[in-house]
Amino acid sequence: MNKKLRKDIDFIITNTIKEVLPDEAVEKALKNFSYGNGKIVLVATGKAAWQMANAAKNSLKRVDRGIVVTKYEHVKGIIEGIECYEAGHPIPDDNSFKATEKALEMVSDLTEDDTVIFLLSGGGSALFEVPLIPGEELQDITKQLLASGADIVEMNTIRKRLSKVKGGRFAKACAPAKIFSIVLSDIVGDPLDMIASGPAYPDFSTCADANAIVKKYNLKLTNKALELLNQETPKELDNVETHIMGSVRELCKAAAKYSETLGYEATILTDELCCEAREAGSFLASIAKSAVKTGKKKAYIAGGETVVHLTGNGKGGRNQELALGAATQISGLENSVAIASVGSDGTDGPTDAAGGYVDTDTLQELNNKNIDVYKVLENNDAYNALKEVDGLIITGATGTNVNDVAIILIDN
Amino acid sequence: MNKKLRKDIDFIITNTIKEVLPDEAVEKALKNFSYGNGKIVLVATGKAAWQMANAAKNSLKRVDRGIVVTKYEHVKGIIEGIECYEAGHPIPDDNSFKATEKALEMVSDLTEDDTVIFLLSGGGSALFEVPLIPGEELQDITKQLLASGADIVEMNTIRKRLSKVKGGRFAKACAPAKIFSIVLSDIVGDPLDMIASGPAYPDFSTCADANAIVKKYNLKLTNKALELLNQETPKELDNVETHIMGSVRELCKAAAKYSETLGYEATILTDELCCEAREAGSFLASIAKSAVKTGKKKAYIAGGETVVHLTGNGKGGRNQELALGAATQISGLENSVAIASVGSDGTDGPTDAAGGYVDTDTLQELNNKNIDVYKVLENNDAYNALKEVDGLIITGATGTNVNDVAIILIDN
Repeated sequence: MNKKLRKDIDFIITNTIKEVLPDEAVEKALKNFSYGNGKIVLVATGKAAWQMANAAKNSLKRVDRGIVVTKYEHVKGIIEGIECYEAGHPIPDDNSFKATEKALEMVSDLTEDDTVIFLLSGGGSALFEVPLIPGEELQDITKQLLASGADIVEMNTIRKRLSKVKGGRFAKACAPAKIFSIVLSDIVGDPLDMIASGPAYPDFSTCADANAIVKKYNLKLTNKALELLNQETPKELDNVETHIMGSVRELCKAAAKYSETLGYEATILTDELCCEAREAGSFLASIAKSAVKTGKKKAYIAGGETVVHLTGNGKGGRNQELALGAATQISGLENSVAIASVGSDGTDGPTDAAGGYVDTDTLQELNNKNIDVYKVLENNDAYNALKEVDGLIITGATGTNVNDVAIILIDN
Repeated sequence: MNKKLRKDIDFIITNTIKEVLPDEAVEKALKNFSYGNGKIVLVATGKAAWQMANAAKNSLKRVDRGIVVTKYEHVKGIIEGIECYEAGHPIPDDNSFKATEKALEMVSDLTEDDTVIFLLSGGGSALFEVPLIPGEELQDITKQLLASGADIVEMNTIRKRLSKVKGGRFAKACAPAKIFSIVLSDIVGDPLDMIASGPAYPDFSTCADANAIVKKYNLKLTNKALELLNQETPKELDNVETHIMGSVRELCKAAAKYSETLGYEATILTDELCCEAREAGSFLASIAKSAVKTGKKKAYIAGGETVVHLTGNGKGGRNQELALGAATQISGLENSVAIASVGSDGTDGPTDAAGGYVDTDTLQELNNKNIDVYKVLENNDAYNALKEVDGLIITGATGTNVNDVAIILIDN
């Protein structure tokens, strides 16, 4: 093993994950926040709402009032001056509706001098909701959509119009106050109109889209619901400033930043990686093989989420398979090349490792232990193979979950 | 289909392949050639030797003498002033040895004012050879090496030392004359010491390596052969200037150049691509999805050779599978994205297509024709699917073979 490269990878990964933890993400985003003359109202929803609100409360000089709407058992204590509510997830319940109504009340009397700090994380779709139709009717429509095979975009196009807060309507409710929105993204590509159904983001779907979906799936709706589908959602929101934090894009940016700290010239290849894990490893190795010829000290970053098609019953995860898939191809390259991949939550597959590390020595080290990489991959047993050559990356549970990042280091 | 992008792809591919045809490659390389005061001797070997020699003869103002050593039935006519010989390939025969001896004679009396134009292409290992041991003995050693499971690097380490011309020794024989070497590379990575066993390239293997291989495989050698293994090959060659032309690297460079001609900012990702074809398509699509967000007009190039693991009995090739693998992921992207991949020889798999083209409309167009991409890929039937949506790229046989190139175009 190239100990220098292993040390560099560990440094980059440790610091990269730190930057996408909810606390750090909120803190970092709030550096862009400028205090106005008016009130500061904090509204946090999603699975990480309590943690984000707590971090914001600690960072901000003052909060005039605030509310947290999170999942059951996700309130970790009292935050002074902030009302904390727990509610149903993934199915919204009465507590979701009641708490969200309270949030709407809290922003109902604001002026243009006031600011709403809106903290959004995954799970907000269920937690942050006030339906414009009775709860049972909404449930029935959701069931019809699920049974019809409608995709998530189609489901949201309908649901946004039946909601008092989704599809940018919460932002409208806050107007004329400004909204400073901090989003922890858990969806690759950061579709802001999709994350928690975009309470503070313009909706790009139209009433015509909604009606077409009703026709396509022959949905049975009440007149009230049909009428609501024809009420347009906001297409522009002038009062919202959005900061996407802790997304896989942020993860990639942080990995690039810390690679550059160590003197590597960094390139982000993609933050929407989607590919069979071991083949992503091969592709990254192909890039490494060309890049070593430049004679420069380089880093390449790819973020996203690969997939594994199981063919065996070994132990491993997609990040470990990616690394092992790269090992065969970079073996013996004259220049020093390392490839590592980790899940930002610290858990790669059903293992205690966050991911895997390989370099130009790994294949030889495996061979020396009579481990055949091809057989290992066939049995999806990357964990046990990498363990033998100190190729596991162990971080423990990190407290965040913004997909995976793979890193190539070339130490020319 | 995005007709503008299809037109751009066709322009780039047509012009890119032209640049790696033997004639154009030789012509282009000779632009760097400066005439000295002395003689100009042309030595061409490999499967494309006649074509390269003919092109060089037409480009050069004068050739004082010359020789072609190529495969049987590969001499296409008389080239004035050049002796043309045909010989055995892939197994060298007496005609190989005789013709190569003639080449050695032709360069034996040169001075430092003279230049040897050395034209090398794939197949030169067998065609350009004078063994330092009897032919049968060389055959026996080759058989022992093959039976032992020695890899190509190990085989060459032994064979170079048993040859009068391999491993840089032909260049030594030309000294003090200068060598202007033009290499058509057919091996990904352009290992110059491997292409035709590197007659005019320094050898990096050592006598110690050779002896270790003898020991490792317990080779039975005569004393003469053992003695030859301990005679070192040239480690430095001051009289050689090498131009690698028509390699996959050149293919990538040309693709980048013609992309830039059309206003795309071009990046070569790799010229050593090695990956399952459809997954390479997914990876390229992931890169495209991130790149569209930059708002710039961009091109990404990846050259090399992907693989296909057959699971069906449809019609297709690795380039067509790569394109189809990308189609699902770039479908519906707001910005215009096209991904194409072609084999430089114009033949992708057992089809009359060079490769495939897809863009953000392709998936919808396939769906409109009730073609399920996943089923198509499972049946390895990319040809018939792409044919339905005008996604085949047809060039006809091109007369060159320097692997494949895949191109992403983003027309922001």
